[in-house]
Amino acid sequence: MRWADGFIAVDWGTTNRRAHRIDHAGACVSSIEDDLGVLSVPPGGFPAAANDIRDKLGDLPLLMAGMVGSTRGWVEAPYVSCPADLDDLGPRLSWVEPGRAAIIPGLSILADGRADVMRGEEVQMFGAVAAGLIPATCFICHPGTHNKWVAVDNGKIVDFRTVMTGEMFDMLRKRGILAEMLTEEAKPDAAFREGAQRGLNASALTAELFSVRARVLLGDMPRASAASYVSGLLIGADLGVGLGLARQSDIIIMGRGELTRLYAAATAVAGCSAREIDGSTAFVAGAVAIARMLD
Amino acid sequence: MRWADGFIAVDWGTTNRRAHRIDHAGACVSSIEDDLGVLSVPPGGFPAAANDIRDKLGDLPLLMAGMVGSTRGWVEAPYVSCPADLDDLGPRLSWVEPGRAAIIPGLSILADGRADVMRGEEVQMFGAVAAGLIPATCFICHPGTHNKWVAVDNGKIVDFRTVMTGEMFDMLRKRGILAEMLTEEAKPDAAFREGAQRGLNASALTAELFSVRARVLLGDMPRASAASYVSGLLIGADLGVGLGLARQSDIIIMGRGELTRLYAAATAVAGCSAREIDGSTAFVAGAVAIARMLD
Repeated sequence: MRWADGFIAVDWGTTNRRAHRIDHAGACVSSIEDDLGVLSVPPGGFPAAANDIRDKLGDLPLLMAGMVGSTRGWVEAPYVSCPADLDDLGPRLSWVEPGRAAIIPGLSILADGRADVMRGEEVQMFGAVAAGLIPATCFICHPGTHNKWVAVDNGKIVDFRTVMTGEMFDMLRKRGILAEMLTEEAKPDAAFREGAQRGLNASALTAELFSVRARVLLGDMPRASAASYVSGLLIGADLGVGLGLARQSDIIIMGRGELTRLYAAATAVAGCSAREIDGSTAFVAGAVAIARMLD
Repeated sequence: MRWADGFIAVDWGTTNRRAHRIDHAGACVSSIEDDLGVLSVPPGGFPAAANDIRDKLGDLPLLMAGMVGSTRGWVEAPYVSCPADLDDLGPRLSWVEPGRAAIIPGLSILADGRADVMRGEEVQMFGAVAAGLIPATCFICHPGTHNKWVAVDNGKIVDFRTVMTGEMFDMLRKRGILAEMLTEEAKPDAAFREGAQRGLNASALTAELFSVRARVLLGDMPRASAASYVSGLLIGADLGVGLGLARQSDIIIMGRGELTRLYAAATAVAGCSAREIDGSTAFVAGAVAIARMLD
């Protein structure tokens, strides 16, 4: 069976996975999404977890990206050093089932006292360029558990920086002194915009965060606004980092709609324009482009 | 029984409590410390938890401060608005057992879009001034789950700011992507000082934190240094907030020795001088000063 006859593209993250059946024409004909992320797979359980995907989408080769290639994943796939483009990834797959299942390498940066790594988002970005969804030279924000700010130059990822915004928000909601106040969903409302404005100019998030508790206790903020405000605060600080790297004033925000709309709202507070791109569509395009190198 | 004959001073925090038996001369004759903080007391369980203290230290009146007076505590004690001094606290105790058990109010600030609250640390600070351990006009750093930067002017607390450093470090160690790398104890070593220097100048902690993971994965930092580096990063950012408020270049660092020594090391990185003061000694002095107002 050749990859060109069809395969399954898997975006396998820490807490979620999305798998897409791709037909001979490179079109996505069926998708599944569940919460069987890398952390939920027991040691030695990846072959079975992969066959579970095949049971649902067909007995096809698997092309995988994301944390499935991390120290916590199936095998540790290498990092390709930036600058890098799509042509650098195809020849460096990690084959976990010969000819039948491969993991796409991640990207790394180590220079000038800065270190960073990425796994999975790069496939979406290269895919979006390959499919003409975004220009070959652009600046991308990719929200998620770990938001990525990425400079793309002529199809190459030349620089990027990760901000732990999603993980931090999740931790604050689950435990600690603010958790009881963060029960609402974050929305791009007035409290969110106030938080984003504050976050953009904040000297230290760890100080601004405690102040949320004090404002609620002292009656200066409705409890129901705390989640949106904290989300705004974290995303505003995140944006402060990203805008420092941006080479364009137009920002492409790629990912899941519920997150891209929050980042788009914060971007507006910062006076920049943003365009939202669906991450799944971009991922499929990237996987198809890599699969074409494999037969 | 009069308070002047002896009482028990209780510093009852979120996760720990310390109780000190004070004799007729105002001297601490016996202390206990355990992890029966406010969060470990079931609803309605505070009278029993208080009697447990009396079983250990004697059947005496209790003078309490800290989170025992918060929404999660025995009763919610009021906040006294700053500027405030010792004389403002004594008349505003919350009596939970008439004549036998009282909670000292906390302090609050709400002005210029800034809100903050404090419970327990103020007793230590007023006590240290009353006992002549620190000058009546000074600038104090009080590390803990929530570090406090406090400006004291002529015996009054006139301004303060809270930074969630301890809670953030604790959350990062317990869960999330960095947890597996933060298994060592934080020490004021070279990695700590490097982190503190970086934290002092960091644009966003949420970006610097992810970089720790990348540096370890890429071999740019030994895994064993990650905890000290992250501690330095958080304390450095904390110090950046505090130095912005400081009216003195000499800083008093009050609290538990294992934390004050880390803050003292970060203070040295920032080029400031610091003096460490034991928080328990200061707490006893503050409780004695308040108890003297009660008979």
